[in-house]
Amino acid sequence: MTHPDRTSLVYPSSAPQKQPSLGDTRQYLASLSSRIVESYAQLGGFNNPEGVNLPSREHVVSILNNLLTLCFPGYFGAEPVLGKNAIFFVDALVDAIYIHLREEIARSLIYATQDRRETVETCHDEADRVTIELIEELPRIRTLLMKDVDAAYAGDPAAKSHDEIILSYPCVEAIATHRIAHELYVRKIPLIPRIMSEHAHSRTGIDIHPGAMIGSHFFIDHGTGVVIGETAEIGQNVKLYQGVTLGALSFRKDKNGRLVKGGKRHPTIEDDVIIYSGATILGGATVIGQGSVIGANVWLTESVPPHTKVTVGKPNQEMVQRSARTA
Amino acid sequence: MTHPDRTSLVYPSSAPQKQPSLGDTRQYLASLSSRIVESYAQLGGFNNPEGVNLPSREHVVSILNNLLTLCFPGYFGAEPVLGKNAIFFVDALVDAIYIHLREEIARSLIYATQDRRETVETCHDEADRVTIELIEELPRIRTLLMKDVDAAYAGDPAAKSHDEIILSYPCVEAIATHRIAHELYVRKIPLIPRIMSEHAHSRTGIDIHPGAMIGSHFFIDHGTGVVIGETAEIGQNVKLYQGVTLGALSFRKDKNGRLVKGGKRHPTIEDDVIIYSGATILGGATVIGQGSVIGANVWLTESVPPHTKVTVGKPNQEMVQRSARTA
Amino acid sequence: MTHPDRTSLVYPSSAPQKQPSLGDTRQYLASLSSRIVESYAQLGGFNNPEGVNLPSREHVVSILNNLLTLCFPGYFGAEPVLGKNAIFFVDALVDAIYIHLREEIARSLIYATQDRRETVETCHDEADRVTIELIEELPRIRTLLMKDVDAAYAGDPAAKSHDEIILSYPCVEAIATHRIAHELYVRKIPLIPRIMSEHAHSRTGIDIHPGAMIGSHFFIDHGTGVVIGETAEIGQNVKLYQGVTLGALSFRKDKNGRLVKGGKRHPTIEDDVIIYSGATILGGATVIGQGSVIGANVWLTESVPPHTKVTVGKPNQEMVQRSARTA
Repeated sequence: MTHPDRTSLVYPSSAPQKQPSLGDTRQYLASLSSRIVESYAQLGGFNNPEGVNLPSREHVVSILNNLLTLCFPGYFGAEPVLGKNAIFFVDALVDAIYIHLREEIARSLIYATQDRRETVETCHDEADRVTIELIEELPRIRTLLMKDVDAAYAGDPAAKSHDEIILSYPCVEAIATHRIAHELYVRKIPLIPRIMSEHAHSRTGIDIHPGAMIGSHFFIDHGTGVVIGETAEIGQNVKLYQGVTLGALSFRKDKNGRLVKGGKRHPTIEDDVIIYSGATILGGATVIGQGSVIGANVWLTESVPPHTKVTVGKPNQEMVQRSARTA
Repeated sequence: MTHPDRTSLVYPSSAPQKQPSLGDTRQYLASLSSRIVESYAQLGGFNNPEGVNLPSREHVVSILNNLLTLCFPGYFGAEPVLGKNAIFFVDALVDAIYIHLREEIARSLIYATQDRRETVETCHDEADRVTIELIEELPRIRTLLMKDVDAAYAGDPAAKSHDEIILSYPCVEAIATHRIAHELYVRKIPLIPRIMSEHAHSRTGIDIHPGAMIGSHFFIDHGTGVVIGETAEIGQNVKLYQGVTLGALSFRKDKNGRLVKGGKRHPTIEDDVIIYSGATILGGATVIGQGSVIGANVWLTESVPPHTKVTVGKPNQEMVQRSARTA
Repeated sequence: MTHPDRTSLVYPSSAPQKQPSLGDTRQYLASLSSRIVESYAQLGGFNNPEGVNLPSREHVVSILNNLLTLCFPGYFGAEPVLGKNAIFFVDALVDAIYIHLREEIARSLIYATQDRRETVETCHDEADRVTIELIEELPRIRTLLMKDVDAAYAGDPAAKSHDEIILSYPCVEAIATHRIAHELYVRKIPLIPRIMSEHAHSRTGIDIHPGAMIGSHFFIDHGTGVVIGETAEIGQNVKLYQGVTLGALSFRKDKNGRLVKGGKRHPTIEDDVIIYSGATILGGATVIGQGSVIGANVWLTESVPPHTKVTVGKPNQEMVQRSARTA
């Protein structure tokens, strides 16, 4: 199979147009710019054709970093924080969060009600209320996060100290981001919770949908490849390893064959459950009972009673002697 | 086994030299610098001993970000873009891309022809041509990308809007980067396509070699751990989940035992195929027929006819009741 | 199950307090700041209540980047480096590393001996000694890294050149970071090695604990999801693929049910072993003999003799014809 054939297999009807002559490059580039702008009009995917703006991903990440700094002051930034000056440090962060988060929430609410411009005032009021509520929640979120750090220390023989965990374990950033994003999700703020959760996903490999409900003392070891779906429910004192999926089993479709959005699609994990690496647990009706242990690479689409150990049986593995080193 | 023994197991012949005396630290550091410079001469791994330079990773990432901004203006940066000013915004980005990408492509072409210095002029001409061609392709690439976003919206019950997908789904950045890098790959530009694809891999956990050929309406959900090899071919309307590998089965070696570079080594996925999480599909002769569904964790090294569902049979799992909570 | 019920399931005892009135927002925000500061006093998780400081994550990452630049000058930054100016370039980096790494190591040593303030002077001396030793090791580390690059070139048919590997392969950054962090780990420096290794984990998806001992010519292809535990030992010329875990099998607990820290918990991989994607090898007594090949998705908790090939047997897979395209 030659290369040109393979290209035409994928792009059968749009073979690249060879540029006949560079001519005046400057003028030609201007004509290409015009073509690109035309494609915005034709295809969309262009933020703000009419003055309504999406929240800014860069601003949301900056606000998230301020919130994480409030949760673990002195750990994430460059500089230490003096104990007696803590109140000035916190004042400044709280003020910055209030100003900027309120603005981004208002943007996302106005965006979500584009057709009804009379609600802009209401959106600003709602943004103010939700921003204040999130700041009110921070001490409670911090209480949960310190319990998560306790769980990591209790659950990982390699953990040398609580400080090491906060400074370096990816689950701390992923879970802290989740507990913040979840507060915005339950208050029905569009877009921002997912921007936050996907930022943490990018940095940690841990993909927790902001809708997931997660109890205290939650620990994810290593974490790369973990997926926790929107309607998953996780009790207290649950430990996950890398590559665990809490996912959907199948999707309901309407009479037109389109996916039905919403509905409980992801499993429920009760208290004191351990799920080892690579296990996949699917379905909104699947419940893993309290105190159960799910072995590595287990594949579950049905419920498991409490205090049950599920393991993949001795795998059907072949061991063959190699006559010589041929690697 | 004590720790010193274990260290010597790994580094048997190079036990660390203890520094006998700090002496004049400044002079000693200078002597260490000289030793490091000597190691460049001995070992290589030093960009530009003779004036020929590699493309800059930092510049390539900056150019890539400008290209992604052109594809989805207003989504990735900090600031919204006014509709009526779009042409100025696009002009500035197109000019910046033209100047800087042309320079990096020229560097990589000159690098690849180090032995033949008479081709420097030709390299600059070629860099100019390819840069213009990539800019010409952008409206077509945007058309494909908007279809990818459509596919994500149609394929994920958790997706609330197209804007949410563009703002937060990692597959958008991974696929957009791929569609751009692939255009440079097919034009045989060295180094730059891989720098781009590995930047997206770092940010998303999705590893698509720029050589892979991917049809329209492509969706990767979650994405962490996905690997798509250099010679993979993917049709239209294909959906992958996290952890899917489209890889090589075995490598050909020459008579000296060295790997043979090149050749079709990765599978072909026809239109309308869904591949669930953790499935591994290997081999250049492996074809997954149109409309097939490959279940999670399936392991395939042979072709599958169209409209086939492949699932791992009921796994050999043991469920054991635990007498008490012993987690 | 309605949403409020589900929330109460997870947070039964701490229903969010509704804010009764915004009142004077400025005064109210100040009271929220005070509550956050109180939570620091009550819960901890606040760097430096008493003047002892943790090392700065941001500074450690900056030092690591300087060390990586010394290992591969001209590859990672924006600018090329002229051969004849190399000594000035290296002098400046070595001086910067000496000043800043010494400071961060001193911080982490003082932190680890918080109760014994008389050791501050000793900590600074020790920091000076270890920093010099790390710089002394750099030529040897570079020798190992160039062999790792050789192994990648020999082991990947898609690799076009050594330069492409250094510029774009994530394993280069992960292994280089590991070889540096390991030198600090064996010298018993707290916190900093893990900050370094988790930074590389975040960027590459490859999670190598700084305690792991890794021989020369080490190659990890793709890499996302790889986990290598603290007490793993890896010989020379070993190749891993994405998603491989070298982990712990079970944890010893003391009479109070708490995990026992330390002890050999992760496997030993002898020379010339290849481990394919998704294989999981667990346990401190597990030894994979020289020249063995471990197939994809294999699950091993026992030793394997030299020159053995272990593969998952033909999986129990079902192929079902689908009556029509129903995807």
